[in-house]
Amino acid sequence: MIRSALLAIDVGGTTVKSAIVDESGRVLARHSVPTGRGEAAQAAVRDAATHLAARARHLGLSLVGAGVVSPGIIDREQGVVHYASNLDWADVSLRAVVGSVVDVPVAVGHDAQAAGEAEWSLGAARGSRDFIHFSVGTGIAASIVVAGTRISGSAGGAGELGHTPVHPGGEKCPCGQRGCLEVYASGGGVARRYFTLSGRTATAREVVQLLDRDPAARQVWDDAVAAWVTSLATCALVLEPELVVLGGGLAQAGEALLGPVRDGLARALTWRSPPALRVSTLGTDAATLGAALMAARVARVATASSPVDH
Amino acid sequence: MIRSALLAIDVGGTTVKSAIVDESGRVLARHSVPTGRGEAAQAAVRDAATHLAARARHLGLSLVGAGVVSPGIIDREQGVVHYASNLDWADVSLRAVVGSVVDVPVAVGHDAQAAGEAEWSLGAARGSRDFIHFSVGTGIAASIVVAGTRISGSAGGAGELGHTPVHPGGEKCPCGQRGCLEVYASGGGVARRYFTLSGRTATAREVVQLLDRDPAARQVWDDAVAAWVTSLATCALVLEPELVVLGGGLAQAGEALLGPVRDGLARALTWRSPPALRVSTLGTDAATLGAALMAARVARVATASSPVDH
Repeated sequence: MIRSALLAIDVGGTTVKSAIVDESGRVLARHSVPTGRGEAAQAAVRDAATHLAARARHLGLSLVGAGVVSPGIIDREQGVVHYASNLDWADVSLRAVVGSVVDVPVAVGHDAQAAGEAEWSLGAARGSRDFIHFSVGTGIAASIVVAGTRISGSAGGAGELGHTPVHPGGEKCPCGQRGCLEVYASGGGVARRYFTLSGRTATAREVVQLLDRDPAARQVWDDAVAAWVTSLATCALVLEPELVVLGGGLAQAGEALLGPVRDGLARALTWRSPPALRVSTLGTDAATLGAALMAARVARVATASSPVDH
Repeated sequence: MIRSALLAIDVGGTTVKSAIVDESGRVLARHSVPTGRGEAAQAAVRDAATHLAARARHLGLSLVGAGVVSPGIIDREQGVVHYASNLDWADVSLRAVVGSVVDVPVAVGHDAQAAGEAEWSLGAARGSRDFIHFSVGTGIAASIVVAGTRISGSAGGAGELGHTPVHPGGEKCPCGQRGCLEVYASGGGVARRYFTLSGRTATAREVVQLLDRDPAARQVWDDAVAAWVTSLATCALVLEPELVVLGGGLAQAGEALLGPVRDGLARALTWRSPPALRVSTLGTDAATLGAALMAARVARVATASSPVDH
């Protein structure tokens, strides 16, 4: 008997992570390629789908649905990314890109929302009814659950924390605004600011390794922590979640991130209890697993609506 | 036949506004006294209740419920204000204060949440399912409705926009933090900053009158508008409401507030549509009417649970 499986693709600002996942959430195969920008980023998605579709055939698996997630402003129904500054995308139909490779229903969604959903179903936020999943990778976005329901916003675009102004009139952001959270506190922002300050190239993860011996790394990281604290304090005062889950690539920094954010948040909220703070348990797999959850839903919908004799 | 009526009290940072309201929301009598601070503010609430209870008797009305709202951190169930910086209150039982004067069930709530509820039921947000009621009086707080449900937070304290950090490390706030929205943009903050800059005393409303001829007034007001824009842009990016209603005393400034906030918000959200912006239609009555709505609910609950032979 041929086993069915799902194709899941997470288009990050740095890496396209993809996997074949079974319906219980187990990863059966993985693939990872650099994202690139613009057309190249679309080609990277196509290549990932092609590679994993071949892999599925080789493993004797039948793909029944695909889920693909990216940052930016997404029209989930149309399957289109309207705008994603970190990918240089405007009006890219991810559904068409993936659908040109695999002949299955394709769900399209927002990476941070997918990661939040995966942490809620399978990870650090399981059982919580009021939490913020704060995802810090190349960019920053949040997935917000209030009273047991995920907030999607009036047009599906809630949670765009990355472009909230933490330093009004501050440093320029690629989005065209100034002082956005991402400028100071995203993986991309940390790397850019470290280069500006030191003249040396390093990823955000490398900056964390340098904290003890490099004053430029220390300053850039302290600025990032301060920006996270400002943003999380604002969210805590506006939404009063019981829990904040730190996810995305930079959450892997562990105590270098968690300790100072916890201290800063307690100082910033002197007259009320800060929310509990946890690091993602799904790590950098969260958005991919969220894409698989979406793929499972769209596969079920497609099966349910197929004529009986198919 | 004796008509029944509700006692509604709005403890603002400057004025205790109170009213007798019938069950259709019509105001039958009003009373207004300066708030004072600490014990004096409690006495002002007691005096308002005493005055209106006598007035109700004189009008042949039977009070069946009371609602009282204030800023701060409120325990609605216990009827206690845990902390309110603008009133110098810590652990004040508003239910006991009002209950010592009138022998009816007393509902206690948050002023900005009550104002938002009144605008939702009776005013500028009628029919909306995704809006923020942004209330700017002596202090600042918000009432947030998402997908048709009001957000209360994990412990009832959502919407405390006034103490979100709009200028990290900025000017000192009476709450003990620095750079809070209220420092720059509340009625109290505008008056304080105008005094610091000009050496002259003026209320926020008087500052608005001076805009055309007083550079200090212009600077303080421009700073306030910039802070509102920063805060509203953040809320729009995080929650994506379809509508923002500006309420509270300062919303009465009309175009001096609405025009620059609308322009600033459009500039701050270049890559997505800003929410619609409206001024409260209930004006400074909003929180009082919200308190009356709460009083009506608690009166109904009390009637429903009374033994039949009473």
